[in-house]
Amino acid sequence: METLSENACFGGTQGVYKHASKATGTDMTFGLFSPVEAQDGPVPVLWFLSGLTCTHENAMTKAGAQCWAAEHGIALIFPDTSPRGDHVADDDAYDLGKGAGFYLNATQDPWAANFQMWDYIIEDLPALVFDHFALDPERQGITGHSMGGHGALTIAMTLPEQFRSVSAFSPICNPTASDWGRKQLEAYLGDEEDADWLAHDASHLMRQRGFDGPMLIDTGTKDQFIDLLRPETLAHAIASRRQQAVFRMQPGYDHSYFFVSSFMEEHVGFHAEALWA
Amino acid sequence: METLSENACFGGTQGVYKHASKATGTDMTFGLFSPVEAQDGPVPVLWFLSGLTCTHENAMTKAGAQCWAAEHGIALIFPDTSPRGDHVADDDAYDLGKGAGFYLNATQDPWAANFQMWDYIIEDLPALVFDHFALDPERQGITGHSMGGHGALTIAMTLPEQFRSVSAFSPICNPTASDWGRKQLEAYLGDEEDADWLAHDASHLMRQRGFDGPMLIDTGTKDQFIDLLRPETLAHAIASRRQQAVFRMQPGYDHSYFFVSSFMEEHVGFHAEALWA
Repeated sequence: METLSENACFGGTQGVYKHASKATGTDMTFGLFSPVEAQDGPVPVLWFLSGLTCTHENAMTKAGAQCWAAEHGIALIFPDTSPRGDHVADDDAYDLGKGAGFYLNATQDPWAANFQMWDYIIEDLPALVFDHFALDPERQGITGHSMGGHGALTIAMTLPEQFRSVSAFSPICNPTASDWGRKQLEAYLGDEEDADWLAHDASHLMRQRGFDGPMLIDTGTKDQFIDLLRPETLAHAIASRRQQAVFRMQPGYDHSYFFVSSFMEEHVGFHAEALWA
Repeated sequence: METLSENACFGGTQGVYKHASKATGTDMTFGLFSPVEAQDGPVPVLWFLSGLTCTHENAMTKAGAQCWAAEHGIALIFPDTSPRGDHVADDDAYDLGKGAGFYLNATQDPWAANFQMWDYIIEDLPALVFDHFALDPERQGITGHSMGGHGALTIAMTLPEQFRSVSAFSPICNPTASDWGRKQLEAYLGDEEDADWLAHDASHLMRQRGFDGPMLIDTGTKDQFIDLLRPETLAHAIASRRQQAVFRMQPGYDHSYFFVSSFMEEHVGFHAEALWA
């Protein structure tokens, strides 16, 4: 692992690191915020998965999360959203290929060679960070924005033993029924919808499994992509399942980081309550 | 004035606006955060002047100031750092020309035509924003980062009747004795150091005038540009003058927005106390 930068931040350290990933077969870059408490031993950790077009950097610099993580003594991890590199397949569209990994393991050419973001997030990167940093693997939460909210929800519901709490900002809630989803699921996974797509649809997973822990979801009423997000499908599934959850439609807010940062205090506080319990 | 964007943010609105500036002879873009309280009448306003290479956008998206401004019910203005446009003079160096206006009125060619940032910040933009938004001109504070900290300090000390409070993050403190200053002052103002440069040196102004109000200055001990900032000169001038001020060297912090955001809560709180008094 190579340290690209480390900056003092809210009494702790905001670092950026690079490592060779077995899952993606590429170098991967991620951001990690360690609060000062990590000097005395392992601290809880909150994963933040980012949305379309983002790298590890967007949320790290724009979401305002370090302030609240420092207050609660928890670490933050900001992974990249796809493999990178000249040899990595890409597409002219912003919503396929680089910056658009969708947190799944591609099975179709040309994506299968490197687009293994599910394994990267749940196996490869955890193995590295729990080995190198003072983080408590028994106290993990996960959140994300847009495509990253989709990733947070699908990963948490699939691996409830790994995450105590899950939240999301304006998540893609129902990709099997949306243009933010159908195109990518077909490109990455092929055309067997029932067999291969449903494991990556939060609304479907909510119907099938739910999540054994607290869940918080915020979406802005003025989100310009709300027709693609389909929060109504997930809300219906949550209520139908009687899932423990707080699902909020926030009046006037849109899809931007101005929305994310406005509610970051509450999301970090929500996870902190679960992780320190 | 043209509205480029408005986003709901911490209960208020983060807007970006464009207008034709008489001072610079160009279109200028700025960010303005209005807290929810502005719906009921004029609120205090804190100016944030940005550093080298920045536009109106950097601090608006990375400094984390809106959270605290909303808490205290004050507005934030994020001006650009120079005129922009294809016809505007520029230099290959990052620290001269576009993105490097140094908050002064240039007198030398080719800069004099558009680089009138002093007049833009103290006359042109205020006339616009106090006309268009619910802001209280009797309750203004000013802060900034690096070159913007230089601007905040020099403007506040020159126009103490206009600003109740001043603060700065890692400001350029003594540009007449620094490579972040001498080159630009000569290019913009000519070679008459004593006659024309000293009005733009915070350490000199502190010696000559000081500031009739509270002052807060933070600089990181690990600031990679600290030799160019020369905080020691300003600290000396402050203490020599017996100026009311809090001047802090923050252990371990560098020049980045990670530093700025770490102490934004305290800076906004500092101004709020003065502006609501």
